[in-house]
Amino acid sequence: MKRTIYKSFVVLLSMVSLTPFLSAQSLKKQKPLVIEQQGSFAVGGTVITNPGTFDPYKPTPEGQTFHGDHAYVFYQIPVNAKKYPLIMWHGIGQFSKTWETTPDGREGFQNIFLRRGFGVYVIDQPRRGNAGRSTAPATIDPVADEQHWFGVFRVGIWPNYYDNVQFARDSETLNQYFRAMTPSIGPIDLNVTTDAASELLNKTGPAILVTHSHSGGMGWITAIKNKNVKAIVSYEPGSGFVFPEGEVPQPVESSSGALQATSVSLDDFKSLTKIPIIIYYGDNIPETLSPNAAADGWRARLIMARKWRDVVNKHGGDVTVVHLPEIGIKGNTHFPFSDLNNIEIADLMSKWLKDKKLD
Amino acid sequence: MKRTIYKSFVVLLSMVSLTPFLSAQSLKKQKPLVIEQQGSFAVGGTVITNPGTFDPYKPTPEGQTFHGDHAYVFYQIPVNAKKYPLIMWHGIGQFSKTWETTPDGREGFQNIFLRRGFGVYVIDQPRRGNAGRSTAPATIDPVADEQHWFGVFRVGIWPNYYDNVQFARDSETLNQYFRAMTPSIGPIDLNVTTDAASELLNKTGPAILVTHSHSGGMGWITAIKNKNVKAIVSYEPGSGFVFPEGEVPQPVESSSGALQATSVSLDDFKSLTKIPIIIYYGDNIPETLSPNAAADGWRARLIMARKWRDVVNKHGGDVTVVHLPEIGIKGNTHFPFSDLNNIEIADLMSKWLKDKKLD
Repeated sequence: MKRTIYKSFVVLLSMVSLTPFLSAQSLKKQKPLVIEQQGSFAVGGTVITNPGTFDPYKPTPEGQTFHGDHAYVFYQIPVNAKKYPLIMWHGIGQFSKTWETTPDGREGFQNIFLRRGFGVYVIDQPRRGNAGRSTAPATIDPVADEQHWFGVFRVGIWPNYYDNVQFARDSETLNQYFRAMTPSIGPIDLNVTTDAASELLNKTGPAILVTHSHSGGMGWITAIKNKNVKAIVSYEPGSGFVFPEGEVPQPVESSSGALQATSVSLDDFKSLTKIPIIIYYGDNIPETLSPNAAADGWRARLIMARKWRDVVNKHGGDVTVVHLPEIGIKGNTHFPFSDLNNIEIADLMSKWLKDKKLD
Repeated sequence: MKRTIYKSFVVLLSMVSLTPFLSAQSLKKQKPLVIEQQGSFAVGGTVITNPGTFDPYKPTPEGQTFHGDHAYVFYQIPVNAKKYPLIMWHGIGQFSKTWETTPDGREGFQNIFLRRGFGVYVIDQPRRGNAGRSTAPATIDPVADEQHWFGVFRVGIWPNYYDNVQFARDSETLNQYFRAMTPSIGPIDLNVTTDAASELLNKTGPAILVTHSHSGGMGWITAIKNKNVKAIVSYEPGSGFVFPEGEVPQPVESSSGALQATSVSLDDFKSLTKIPIIIYYGDNIPETLSPNAAADGWRARLIMARKWRDVVNKHGGDVTVVHLPEIGIKGNTHFPFSDLNNIEIADLMSKWLKDKKLD
C-alpha cells in the first residue's frame, strides 16, 4: 500500500542507568542460571548455485553460491537438564524475542523454563530475524500499522487498554512491544519453515514444541513430518488447522473474514493423534460476532480450535483447549507467556507437562 | 545486478544426533556458565507517525505508528562480573552470531568472555538481523556471492584454502559460515547505527567496545558521541578511519580500489586520544600490491590503520596496531575471534585489558 507518511523522528529518552535492565525487584530473589552449554547454529535451508566456474582474480556471478532459507537457533542447556528440551517458535511478524525478556522487562519463557530445568531452543524461522537470508526476493516497506496490531494482539481497542489487561501501561513497555516485531524477508513458505523445523528436531532428538499464533499451524505440520515432536504446547494458534480429507469443517465466519481449515491425508492426520497437545487462548475474545474485527478473528479461531480438538480426539488423540478466562485467569492478551501473569501461565504449562510425564 | 540463476535445492544432510551441538571434546572440560542475569531489549531508534486519528473499527493508515531503526541487544551478566562489560558489534553482512558459536561448533567470544567474568552484550545493529524494522524501504535479492566473500574474508583463494589458515575444512563448517551472513534491510546509515550504539552505552554505563570490520569505523564515531566508551578492541577495522581536519592522509591505493579516510573536527578527534584502543589484523594480507583484490584491500586497510595510530598517538592517544603474523600468530582470517586459535586470540585481548587495568 502506497501512501504519504509524516516522519516524526522522536529521539527516545533512554533510561540512564548504571545497572542492568531487568526489574530489580524481580531479580533480587532469583538464583543465577547455571548453563551447561549454550550456542547458536543455522539449520535446514537450501543452496542456490550459479552455473559456471568462479575465477577469484576476475570475480563474476559465475560459479558462486547463496545459502539461504535456514532457521537460526540459539540454545541453552541447563545442568541436569530434563529429558525433553523445549523448542520455542515465534508467531507472525515476530522473532525469538517473543520468548526472551518481556516488553516490561521481566523474564520470559526462555529464562523461566531454563530455571525449571528444561533445555530451551529459541528459533528465528527461515526468512525472519537472524535467519534473514532468503532465497526469495523481498521488497520491504516501513508500514505504520502498530495500532492495528495493538487491537489484533488484544492489548486493547486503541487508544484504550482493556480494563483487565495483563499488560503494563507505561510508554517504554509499548515501545519495546512494537520493536519486538521484525519483517518477513520474502514470503512465509509453509514447506520452507516446517522443513527447517523438522531438521532442527533431527538434531535435538525428541523435544516439545512450544508454538505461538502463526507457528501453531506450522507446528501441526512439523509434528506430521517428524516423530521427534513428543508434545505441543500451542498459544493462540491462528490459521492452519488441518483436518482429515472429508472431515474439513465449514469456514467460521467473523468480522475479520472467514477462517478456513485445510486438509491432510488421514495417515498424516493420525500423527497428531499420537502426541499430547494443549492449546491456550487468552481473554477479551468476543463471545458473539463483534464489529471489533481485530478481536473477532480470535472468536473464530477459538471455535475452530475446538472443532479441531473434537476431530483429533475422535480419532484417538489427546488435545485440550483451555480458554483461560473459563478457568478464572483473566486479562491475557495474544501473548500469555509474556503477560504480567506469565509465571501463572508457565505454572499451567508445567503442570500439564508433569501430568503428561514429559518433565 | 540482474542475472539468471540456476537454483539447485540441495537438501542438507543433517547430522542426526541426540546430544547437543558444540563439539563434545571442547565442552566436557568446561564448567557451567553461571549467569546472574540475561535478557534482550531494543535500544535507540525512531518513530514514524502517520497524521490523523486511528479508528479501530475502520482501520486505515491514519494515526498509525512505525517504530524502527533501533538496535537489538542480547545480554548476559555472569555472577561477580567485572566492572566493565563488553559490547560486541558485528561487521558488514553479519549479525550477533559473529560472537556466538564458531562455524565449526566451538565457543566464540560471547562464551569465552562470560567465562572470564565479563558481562557481554551482543548487538544486531539497526536494520540487521533481529533489528530488521527499518524506517527506510529495502529491496533484497538473493545474490550468489559467497565465493567472493570467501576471498575477502581471507579463508583462501576459492576453491583453495590458505595453507596455514585457522579454519576447519569440512563442508558443514563452510555451510554454517555462509549462513552466518544476513542482509541489511535498507541502507547502512552511520548516524542511525552510532546513535543506537550510543543509546546502548547510556544504558550500560561505562563499557568496552569490541568491534569487527565495518563496525570498526562506527566504533570510533560512537566513542566520539559517548564518553562511556572506556576502551575499544577492534578486529580488522575496514573503512571509516577518521582524522582531524587538515590531517587526512592521501587515499591508499589497492587493487580493490583506493581506500579513503575521512575527517572530523579536532575536538571530536581528541575523544579518541582519551581511551586505550587496540587493533588486530590477521594473516595472509599481501605485503605488496597484489592482483588478488579480495585480499589486497586488507593491505591498504592495515597501512591506513598504522597511519591512523600514528596521528592519534601524536595527539596524545594510546593506539596499538597488532599484525598477528608479526608476533608469530599465523593463519588468522578476517574473523580472528572465531578462528581455530580463538582462545589464543582471546588471551591476547585479556592480557591487553589487564595491562590497561580494564578487567
